[in-house]
Order: sequence, then C-alpha cells, then structure tokens
Amino acid sequence: MSRYKHIREQAYKANMQLPELGLVIFTFGNVSAADHNLGVFAIKPSGIPYDKLSPGNMVIVDFEGNVVEGTLRPSSDTKTHAVLYKHWANITGIVHTHSTYATAWAQSQRDIPIFGTTHADHNTNDIPCAAPMSDERIKGDYEYQTGFQIMDCLKDRGLSYEETEMILVGNHAPFTWGKTVEQALYNSAVLENIAKMAWLTEQINPSVTRLKHTLVKKHYERKHGPGSYYGQ
Amino acid sequence: MSRYKHIREQAYKANMQLPELGLVIFTFGNVSAADHNLGVFAIKPSGIPYDKLSPGNMVIVDFEGNVVEGTLRPSSDTKTHAVLYKHWANITGIVHTHSTYATAWAQSQRDIPIFGTTHADHNTNDIPCAAPMSDERIKGDYEYQTGFQIMDCLKDRGLSYEETEMILVGNHAPFTWGKTVEQALYNSAVLENIAKMAWLTEQINPSVTRLKHTLVKKHYERKHGPGSYYGQ
Amino acid sequence: MSRYKHIREQAYKANMQLPELGLVIFTFGNVSAADHNLGVFAIKPSGIPYDKLSPGNMVIVDFEGNVVEGTLRPSSDTKTHAVLYKHWANITGIVHTHSTYATAWAQSQRDIPIFGTTHADHNTNDIPCAAPMSDERIKGDYEYQTGFQIMDCLKDRGLSYEETEMILVGNHAPFTWGKTVEQALYNSAVLENIAKMAWLTEQINPSVTRLKHTLVKKHYERKHGPGSYYGQ
Amino acid sequence: MSRYKHIREQAYKANMQLPELGLVIFTFGNVSAADHNLGVFAIKPSGIPYDKLSPGNMVIVDFEGNVVEGTLRPSSDTKTHAVLYKHWANITGIVHTHSTYATAWAQSQRDIPIFGTTHADHNTNDIPCAAPMSDERIKGDYEYQTGFQIMDCLKDRGLSYEETEMILVGNHAPFTWGKTVEQALYNSAVLENIAKMAWLTEQINPSVTRLKHTLVKKHYERKHGPGSYYGQ
Repeated sequence: MSRYKHIREQAYKANMQLPELGLVIFTFGNVSAADHNLGVFAIKPSGIPYDKLSPGNMVIVDFEGNVVEGTLRPSSDTKTHAVLYKHWANITGIVHTHSTYATAWAQSQRDIPIFGTTHADHNTNDIPCAAPMSDERIKGDYEYQTGFQIMDCLKDRGLSYEETEMILVGNHAPFTWGKTVEQALYNSAVLENIAKMAWLTEQINPSVTRLKHTLVKKHYERKHGPGSYYGQ
Repeated sequence: MSRYKHIREQAYKANMQLPELGLVIFTFGNVSAADHNLGVFAIKPSGIPYDKLSPGNMVIVDFEGNVVEGTLRPSSDTKTHAVLYKHWANITGIVHTHSTYATAWAQSQRDIPIFGTTHADHNTNDIPCAAPMSDERIKGDYEYQTGFQIMDCLKDRGLSYEETEMILVGNHAPFTWGKTVEQALYNSAVLENIAKMAWLTEQINPSVTRLKHTLVKKHYERKHGPGSYYGQ
Repeated sequence: MSRYKHIREQAYKANMQLPELGLVIFTFGNVSAADHNLGVFAIKPSGIPYDKLSPGNMVIVDFEGNVVEGTLRPSSDTKTHAVLYKHWANITGIVHTHSTYATAWAQSQRDIPIFGTTHADHNTNDIPCAAPMSDERIKGDYEYQTGFQIMDCLKDRGLSYEETEMILVGNHAPFTWGKTVEQALYNSAVLENIAKMAWLTEQINPSVTRLKHTLVKKHYERKHGPGSYYGQ
Repeated sequence: MSRYKHIREQAYKANMQLPELGLVIFTFGNVSAADHNLGVFAIKPSGIPYDKLSPGNMVIVDFEGNVVEGTLRPSSDTKTHAVLYKHWANITGIVHTHSTYATAWAQSQRDIPIFGTTHADHNTNDIPCAAPMSDERIKGDYEYQTGFQIMDCLKDRGLSYEETEMILVGNHAPFTWGKTVEQALYNSAVLENIAKMAWLTEQINPSVTRLKHTLVKKHYERKHGPGSYYGQ
C-alpha cells in the first residue's frame, strides 16, 4: 500500500473537506488524486459516509477505470475521473459535487455569465454548461461518456482544460479539476460562490450585461498573467 | 419497557438528528420508528424541546393511534403515522418536518418537477403535492385523514409508496418514510435539498424543462435497479 | 437590586438568545421583561455588544419610560416597550429585532399572507404590517409614537394583542410579545421562519392563494382552542 | 518592528474577523489599519490563508503604496488603500471583501436603495455603486485608479467620506472604511446585511418605494445627530 500512500492521503484529506466547505450533504460528492507516473488515482469509495472514510479505504484505480487496489467499490463516477486523467496529462485532482447553486445552474442548462471580477479572477469566459448527453451515449457506458461530454464541450467552445478548470454537466452537476487536488477543491468552492452571486446578480438586475473585456483581462492577468502580482 | 427499547432508541436518535440536519426549529417535526411484529411505533412526545428528549420519553402507540406505553401525550401528528404504518407493511420509519424549502413548495401547492440527476437518483417522478384536504375531511379526524390524503394522492398518481418515499401535503409540509428510520430521515434531508435546487433552477431559467426520460431512468437504476452500482 | 433580580435575569437570558437564534447581528435587537406588580421592566442597555451583557447591566425602566435603576442608557427603543406594557396588562415580554426576512417584509410594507399551517399554528390572520408613521408623529416622540402605531394597527384590523403576538412596523422591522419572555422570543423566531417561507412560496407560485379558512381554524385550534391537543 | 506594532495588531485582528463574520471565503478580502502620524498602514499579505496570518506578517506600506517593512508581498489591492488614506485624513481603517450580497449589487451596477431604518441608521442616502472603470484607467495603474474611481463617485454624488463610509465598485465588490478599523469592519458586515435585505425587499414588493425623508432623518439622527441617543 505504501506506493500509493501519497495519493490516498491527498484524496482522503480533500474528500473530508467537502462537507466542511458546505459543498455536499451525505455522500453527494467525490474527490480523486492522481499520480501520472504510476498511472493511477485514489478515489472515494461509493456511498460511504464521510465520517467512515480513511486514507486506507480510498480505492486505487487505473486510467481505464480498473480497480488496482482496495476492497471497496469505487465511487460510481469513477470512469468520468479515469477518462479525464487519461486525456489531461497536467491535472492531478478532480472534484465532483452536487453543490446547491452550481447544480441549479446545471439543471437550468445555462452557462454562468461572467458578471464580475470574482469570476474574472479565475476564468476569462462564461463557465460552460455541457449539453445533456444524447440517448445513445446514455445507453452506452454512462460515466465513461460523461468524461467525453466534458471534453467535447470544452473543445466546442475553444477552451483549454488548463485555463478553464470548471464545468457544469447539464441536468447533472459541476466537475472541477486542477494541477493539484487542493486547486481542484478550491475551484469547487469558488464555482459555488460564483454561481450564487451570478444568480443574485440577475435577480437584482435582470438586464445586467457581462463584464467588459478590458476588466476581464485585467483581473485574470493579476492572478495568472506573466506579470501576475497576486499571492506570494 | 424493554420490549420496545429498540424502537425507542431508533426514534430518539432520529428525532435528535432533525435539528442537526437543519430541518426543524423548536419542536416543528417528529420522527417515529415502527415494529410491525409488535404492531406499534415509538414517536416523539408533543411539544417537548429536543434537548429534553430521551429514549425513555418516546411514546409507544399502536397502529390505531392508541397509546400503549408512555406518560406523555404523543405528537399531534401521531394518527397520520398510525394510518401509514397500518397500510404500508414495508416501512418502519416516518419523518414529518416543516423544513423551509419543502414547506414552501407545499404552501405553493405545486409538485416539485424533476430537473436533475440529484432528484433522479432518488425518484423517477415529480415529487407529488397532495391537494389540501376537503372541508369534510378537515372537520372529521384531521390527522387520521391526513394519512388518507397522502395515500389517495399516491394512488391517483399511480405511484407506489415503496418507490416514492416522500410527499408534500398541500398548504402543510412534507412527510417522508422508508424501510428504516435512517432511510426516512435521509429522505427528509434529500427532499429539502431537492426542493431548494428546484426553486433556484426555475429562478435561473423560468423556461427550464424536465429531465428527459432516458436520464431519469439511468440515474435511478444506478442506485436502485437490478444492476445498481452505487454504494457497497 | 434584588427586587428586580428576576426580570434582570429573564431579560439577560433572552437577549443572549437573539444571536444564537440567528435573529440579530451586532446590537440590532432588544428584549425586555416586565413585572406588572412592580410596574417596571428590565431592558438591554443601548449599543452594548451581546458578549458584554450581564443581568446586572440590564436597565430597569417604568411604564412611562423613566429609568428606575441602572447606570447605562437603556435601548433607544425603550419607550416603545414602555407604551406597550402600559396598555397591555397581559404581556411580560417584548422582543424587537431586525431579523432579515421579517424586516424585508416590513420594508416592503406588506402584510405576510397566511399560506400554510406553520403560520396557522400561530395566527389565524395575515401578520399585519403597520403603516409607516405620519410626519407629525415622527417629529414628536418617535419611539413613544411607535408604540401607538403598533396599537392603532391592531385596532384598525380588529385584532387582539392576546391573539396576535407579532407585527411588522412598516419600513422598520418586527416586534413580538407574549405572556412570558420565552414566548415573545419564540414568536420572534417563528415570525422569521414564516416570513422566509412566505417569500419563497410567492417565488415558487406567484398566483398562490391564502390558506382556506377551515384549515386555518383547524390548525390554530389544535394548539390554542379549548380542545387543543398540542403539547403536554 | 515595535513602532508599527499597534497597526499590525489592529490589521491582524480585523482580518481574522472577516471569515468569522461570514464575509469572505479563502483569501477574498483584506483589511488595513493606518497611522496618519507615521504615514503608513498595515495590510494583509497577498494570497495567504487566514489561518497563516499573524501580526508579524502584516505588511507595512506608505501612502504612495511603497512597502516600508515586511518580507511578503502586500495585498494586490494595496494601492487602492494607499490612495484613500492619502486623501482622507480622518479614516484609519479600510475593508475590502467580495461578500456575496454586496458583490451581487456591485455586479448588477445598481446603487442599493434606502428601503428601511436599518439602512437609515447608518446612511441617509442610497449606497452608491461607482461606475466600472474606463478602459484608459484600467490600462493604467488599476488598483491606484480604483481609489480615484471611489473618490470620484462620492464627489459626483455630493457625498462626504465621513458620512458615507461604504461604496460598491461596479462589476467588482464593496469597500468600506471608518475612523477606526473596528468601524470599517462593522460597516462591512452592516453593508452585507443591508444588501441582502434590499434584494429581498424588491423580491417581495417589486414596486416598493424608498424610505421617506422624515424617517431617514429621524433614524440617522438617533445614532449620529447632535442629540443622538443611541449607544452609551
């Protein structure tokens, strides 16, 4: 077990933070942590309450979705994680929740418009909502296809997974990711915050318009551009 | 008292979780736990604050609504519980709350439309809202008739209590049930969550449509079908 | 100080519960406890943070609004409390908060319609919103006149203070009262809950109608009528 | 370090209260504390989690925005703070957050209308929303220009920074200030509360009108006029 210890601990720690951040009730969420050199990721077992989790009962799965180590069944969303890790070499963390406000946007089948600098600090575009899956894909390998649904949506919008680290899956709920598990988890909480503020913004001003491009650019570059000056 | 000890403890434990789950303020809720072999259930005494409850002061009532053991008056909703246990052999837990979002839907006299997979994971249909009671029934044995109001609504919609474990009573509030008390309590928290997200979904997109049937089916079967693969 | 000890302790205890019940931030609220035999009430001192309160620094005031005992200035709303105690012999507790949802209804200058049984368990009518004060009254003794504004509103609606224990003051915020301080405090939390659910109810169904009279009567009588069967 | 100890401690203490008051998630906010005699202020370092802050790692900056003492990079909003301290001799605290409701109003590019006495207790006018910055200003020294954007907005509305201690920056988020750091922090929490209630007020009554002038005047004078009688 020792060769997977680091990702077991990362996945455990991040899963435990989901309820603390108010992003899940019961077992409505899952986090995984990958090691691309080993070609595997650690993920929450399915349907186990958060207070019963431990680094030891995280399940180790390869990028085809096969269990490599662990006695419990992995999260039912495991194949979605596997597909994304297989195709995206530069992420090591994925988070899936049914957090209230982001999920409401997903159910509404609308992209979250970029209304302010809180959003622009993290993304330069509307947060995309992938179309609900076609009946053919649903009847196939559903969770596996959810991964392709996510990748296809980014491609259709001309977005890179390295710049857009969050998406809504239409009628379902959000997925976020990142270079580290901490970043993926952070993105999940940020997305929920942005989703709540965007809903309120439209309630307060139904004819509100998007943030103008110069402000989008400025805020994103403060945090992410070559001359960024946010953080240490 | 020992022959009812198990249901006293189940009912006590579940009642204590209502405020922890944010489903009630003061004494606005009650949980019961039944034993069909003994033909009785344990239920919260009426109007007693949650911090004064104990397994010992749960009231034991038979399926006609008669107190079998206990010195306190049982919850004013006791006869509703009795009627449901009498007619539904396969449930052992019932929860009634005035949780904010589910109650708002009940007051609105609208079914909660199925908008996403969080809902579909638990139900394949809109969550029904029973019509407010007729004046004749109200003037009769009110709580007793509430039980029939619930059963009639399921029958009218062609729903089975074993598949649909939650309902809104129009102008009143939700009732949930389950094979176990834990399941009934879980359903109560899930319903509140679904109710909040459905309200937000319509706010974000007033012309939103229901989840398509293929997705409903897929998600429900992940958790409940013969080939289910959620949980352990 | 000993002859006022009981009301000092009641007022202190109830004031401390305002932030615990989520009804106030900072010092936005005040509770008083009266003794009609002594002709005085104990009230929170003005602008003192909740963590600095003690039974000893509650201010004792008579029903004309004069300080009888205490070195601190009493709550700026003291005269409103004094007027109500002077005219209403059967209440010993008054609570004033700026709780979010009840205050929003007061700002909206609308009565809270009776939409469900949670409301009917406590009141048989819409919760009245007193009209904003006339300019003449405002220029007079403002807090004193607020008391009359409240009494006039009940009179205009044909309501008794013994049956309707809560009101919204237009453009301002709610006041609640009761036979005991605990009841007044309970009413404050119940009102906030009803206010939130009524707002949501109209959001979910803009054409919703009031609860029909037979249900109003039934629920109120369960708790308050001669044959009441709620509580012990 | 000892000559800046007092403002380091003030800034540290106030920054730590931001998450406790529910005004920020992660590092989405910053507080500074100024000493006009020394011509400097202490401000939160950029991007450091709240649980890693200490009085010692606050950064000391002069009113031109130059770091005077400290090894960490100061908050990315530092120049906005510097500009305001330079021009406003009578404030010693500034708070910037992305608190949910106030930020939604800022994103909506609307002033917060004065709907009730909670608002009037603190301001006699609508809470202004500064227009989004012109492209020229954005391309210049952005945070520096944000300070001017705030000052220009107050000037355009004929408002004094000593009476109006809070503003929304369009598309961005709120800034508040005060004679003391505690007052600036208090204003930030009050603004969030007012913002939430104003949103709800318009939801409940879309045709609601502003508080009439006589009530605005009365409530503000209770707390702030020459004959004020709120507090001790």
